[in-house]
Amino acid sequence: MAKTVAEIGEFNLIDLLDDLIKKEGHAGARVILGIGDDAACFSARPGFETLVTCDSLVEGRHFLAQHLSPYDLGRRAMSVNISDIGAMGGRPLYAFISLGLKADTLIDDLKEIYRGFLSELNTFEAGILGGNLTKVSDHNFIDITLIGEVEKQYLLKRSGAQPGDTILATGFPGQSNAGLQLLLKAIQPDTLAQAYCRPVHRAREGRALAQTGLINAMIDTSDGLLGDLGHICAKSRVGALLVEARLPLNDLLQEAAARLDCKPYELVLQPSDDYELIITCAPGAVEQVRSALKKVSNVDLTEIGRITDIGEGINLLHPDGTREPLKPLGWDHFKE
Amino acid sequence: MAKTVAEIGEFNLIDLLDDLIKKEGHAGARVILGIGDDAACFSARPGFETLVTCDSLVEGRHFLAQHLSPYDLGRRAMSVNISDIGAMGGRPLYAFISLGLKADTLIDDLKEIYRGFLSELNTFEAGILGGNLTKVSDHNFIDITLIGEVEKQYLLKRSGAQPGDTILATGFPGQSNAGLQLLLKAIQPDTLAQAYCRPVHRAREGRALAQTGLINAMIDTSDGLLGDLGHICAKSRVGALLVEARLPLNDLLQEAAARLDCKPYELVLQPSDDYELIITCAPGAVEQVRSALKKVSNVDLTEIGRITDIGEGINLLHPDGTREPLKPLGWDHFKE
Repeated sequence: MAKTVAEIGEFNLIDLLDDLIKKEGHAGARVILGIGDDAACFSARPGFETLVTCDSLVEGRHFLAQHLSPYDLGRRAMSVNISDIGAMGGRPLYAFISLGLKADTLIDDLKEIYRGFLSELNTFEAGILGGNLTKVSDHNFIDITLIGEVEKQYLLKRSGAQPGDTILATGFPGQSNAGLQLLLKAIQPDTLAQAYCRPVHRAREGRALAQTGLINAMIDTSDGLLGDLGHICAKSRVGALLVEARLPLNDLLQEAAARLDCKPYELVLQPSDDYELIITCAPGAVEQVRSALKKVSNVDLTEIGRITDIGEGINLLHPDGTREPLKPLGWDHFKE
Repeated sequence: MAKTVAEIGEFNLIDLLDDLIKKEGHAGARVILGIGDDAACFSARPGFETLVTCDSLVEGRHFLAQHLSPYDLGRRAMSVNISDIGAMGGRPLYAFISLGLKADTLIDDLKEIYRGFLSELNTFEAGILGGNLTKVSDHNFIDITLIGEVEKQYLLKRSGAQPGDTILATGFPGQSNAGLQLLLKAIQPDTLAQAYCRPVHRAREGRALAQTGLINAMIDTSDGLLGDLGHICAKSRVGALLVEARLPLNDLLQEAAARLDCKPYELVLQPSDDYELIITCAPGAVEQVRSALKKVSNVDLTEIGRITDIGEGINLLHPDGTREPLKPLGWDHFKE
């Protein structure tokens, strides 16, 4: 019989997970103390800044357990955080994991969740240094704090965009939400559902882009192309002009738009957690940026518009030459 | 009418908390980026190690909302983490806060929780650098990751205890659990209930003790005097002899033992989250340690026994000269 979290008990559970982490994971670089003291301890490297991000996933709210295997759930939860570190130009180093688990959670499922974490961390030789296990009564939650590092000179913020900058995006934002919408409507699961269940972060790409020294602002798309461009505009105190005809579209998004009865460009702009990157750089730097990215990745990089003065707001240029003002979610942050 | 989390909406809520943090909190030292980018960013100091701890509190499991004001809940949640940093000899710097909130949580209560966080952080000029808000359906949770620093030479682990060391404890461990038991039995709430609702950490004391350079091992008591001494023994691969007649007892514990129908020393040893410190040092160093502590605190410091060889296990010496073998919770960790 498959055992549950309640049957095995807290101390055995901690031992079991420690074992799994030791056998299948990395220790992490410059770790003085990992799991097993009052706090974990590491040495930061001279010349580097320390980065910290945290994200929670709550069952039913951030993930649909019936559509995600435990392994994919672990990967997804860790990817979300790795994406944030990559979007600063950094590399992930140490993860701290707090889990809220229902008593009937299967040990085998829990191990698969951890294997999902480790599959993402191992790529960077990053380690799990601590965490907590807590019993909850209804919805499982996963709360991860991920610590990383970035060379002082390569730290990339949201706040550096300049009027005149070209705006570029990796991949095909909107796929994740389109996949989720199709899943929720029980339309035959297809490739797009994978974009939701197994999002691919661009942390390696983010790091390579940061190291060109040519990027002015960078963000990962967890609120959708428009939402996250809105964050860049708010923090940089600039506007943006997006060109509808240049928005990245593939056959999958075209098909999904037909099935979901909306315009393809709406899918691209909508709230969606794809973990692609939006970057801005001087127009003259685009070709160098493109070739730096090609060295580490096959991902598409598309020029989707340009940064404007703050007074112009964010607009979409339609093929007929009309401009539609856009109001991203969180636009009220603009006032800061 | 008092507003709820659901009524005000996520973006307004984030703005409101950011405002409160800016107005009533500290920015934190050497912060490059606080709240508002993909990740927070800070510069570690040369000569210091970075410490990280995380702890979750779940309503109903780790705290009884009806006995704790929102302010005390915030203080308690932050104290637990500050205690861990102090027990390494460190100073807290940056907090990251993930909250799971029911839709009917009152905004005013949420602000009080944050004021509780800040009251503890402000003492150390530590800042809140990030976090998450998530809606939950039944039990609120608070998950805090706290980052600190310690001079490389002052880092204190659980693993340094030596046979022959004197074992010392601050304050009166056991009071918190005794207070909780009295609350649960609805016995007239008294001073002991405060030990549970408003535990006092010893982070300042831990730092002062570490800086003597005379302490071999240190831990904070969150699993009780016996449980946490057990952790020191497991990690240091030593045994311990506790002397019943020397265990710290005050009138409150004596009274509580009478009311709860148990022996006073049982209350002292039991699982209890008091956030006192257990330290071990060479017998010849005790007086210097004592006077270093007196310079920063009035807390009692009691010699409760000595570290022995691992083969002797953990024993309690009764007044009649008999030795009772003790088996702390988590003693199976001893095998590591």
